[in-house]
Amino acid sequence: MTKQERAVRTRHSLICSAAEAFERHGYVQAKLSDISASAGVSPGALHFHFENKAAVAATVEASAGVSLRREAWLAQRPDMNALQRLTNTSHALAGRLRRDVVARAGFKLSYEAPHSSGPTLHQEWQVCVRQLLAEASDEALLLEGTEHSVVADGIVAATTGFEMLGREDPAWFSATALTAFWRLILPSIARPQTLRALEPGGSPTRVEGHQSPIG
Amino acid sequence: MTKQERAVRTRHSLICSAAEAFERHGYVQAKLSDISASAGVSPGALHFHFENKAAVAATVEASAGVSLRREAWLAQRPDMNALQRLTNTSHALAGRLRRDVVARAGFKLSYEAPHSSGPTLHQEWQVCVRQLLAEASDEALLLEGTEHSVVADGIVAATTGFEMLGREDPAWFSATALTAFWRLILPSIARPQTLRALEPGGSPTRVEGHQSPIG
Repeated sequence: MTKQERAVRTRHSLICSAAEAFERHGYVQAKLSDISASAGVSPGALHFHFENKAAVAATVEASAGVSLRREAWLAQRPDMNALQRLTNTSHALAGRLRRDVVARAGFKLSYEAPHSSGPTLHQEWQVCVRQLLAEASDEALLLEGTEHSVVADGIVAATTGFEMLGREDPAWFSATALTAFWRLILPSIARPQTLRALEPGGSPTRVEGHQSPIG
Repeated sequence: MTKQERAVRTRHSLICSAAEAFERHGYVQAKLSDISASAGVSPGALHFHFENKAAVAATVEASAGVSLRREAWLAQRPDMNALQRLTNTSHALAGRLRRDVVARAGFKLSYEAPHSSGPTLHQEWQVCVRQLLAEASDEALLLEGTEHSVVADGIVAATTGFEMLGREDPAWFSATALTAFWRLILPSIARPQTLRALEPGGSPTRVEGHQSPIG
């Protein structure tokens, strides 16, 4: 292993340890000394990679952003209608949050103690939901009289709640809970002919357990 | 004003200042010195009423519990069906959270840093939603095939999300947002004849702006 490979590996270990610490103790109470110790490196090695705790948090948040955006992007199969893409995206993001502590910690940090000046990950999700529902409206998938911005707010609130509750009890992140939610909401918003073709559990290529190319 | 009246008043000011500090800075970062200063009392006076920060937080949480439980209880008019009682309860609680910083801070503390050994306020709300939906099922208000526990989870998640989002932007606590949510969800769960009589904005005696007897 070259020196550079070792540095990349150490940095990766530090990001994972930091995510675990932020998830468990929150940003304020997480300790740099615990982060370096659980990554198996010296405090000096941590400071070689990161100037301070804020820099570590910013990196966790940025890594979460990269993986969650990629996950959302992969769920956007162009041959699918906007409602199926929305359903699939929610399952893809929940799956990533279930299996990836960096994504979970970064999402939480972005909400509670954001270290970037741009929109939070949470705000990006709001934009994504609103946009897909506006597309669903353009594609004439929605029941007559459905205000797509109102529906978007309800979906944003519910999915935020699932993420929030999942922090205490991971069952809320489960594909089952999310599928049940879509079964509940889709009949209120989709036209009958659209509804019949929709898969509330996500379409086959993106359901839980499927190996993501960026796994 | 007697000595005892003054003590009650001071204690009340301290609880309000503490709630503001916990809401703004979170439990860990809130400072007792700021709490006493903004209540206009000396640090000694604070310590006369509360042993430490944990005791202050426990009192804020307990006060929030009392007012939120009372609010929920008042919304339970026995002449209404279980779905209307659920809708009304959600509006009553959102109203209390909108106008009462102690309720907001206590709800947040109960979630993030609970100081009582019993169920959190959030868990009490989950129990309330589940129970009212089970009653709605017993009262044959729900569409055939509706699994009331699944619906309860979706409603718990969504309302948790509204509370969470409301911390950043109070518009999420608004009666309008909550009414829109019920308009979205009720047609998926209520039988048509039940649905026609339901008021998603809460029934007249308990809507936003109405003076609560404990307001």
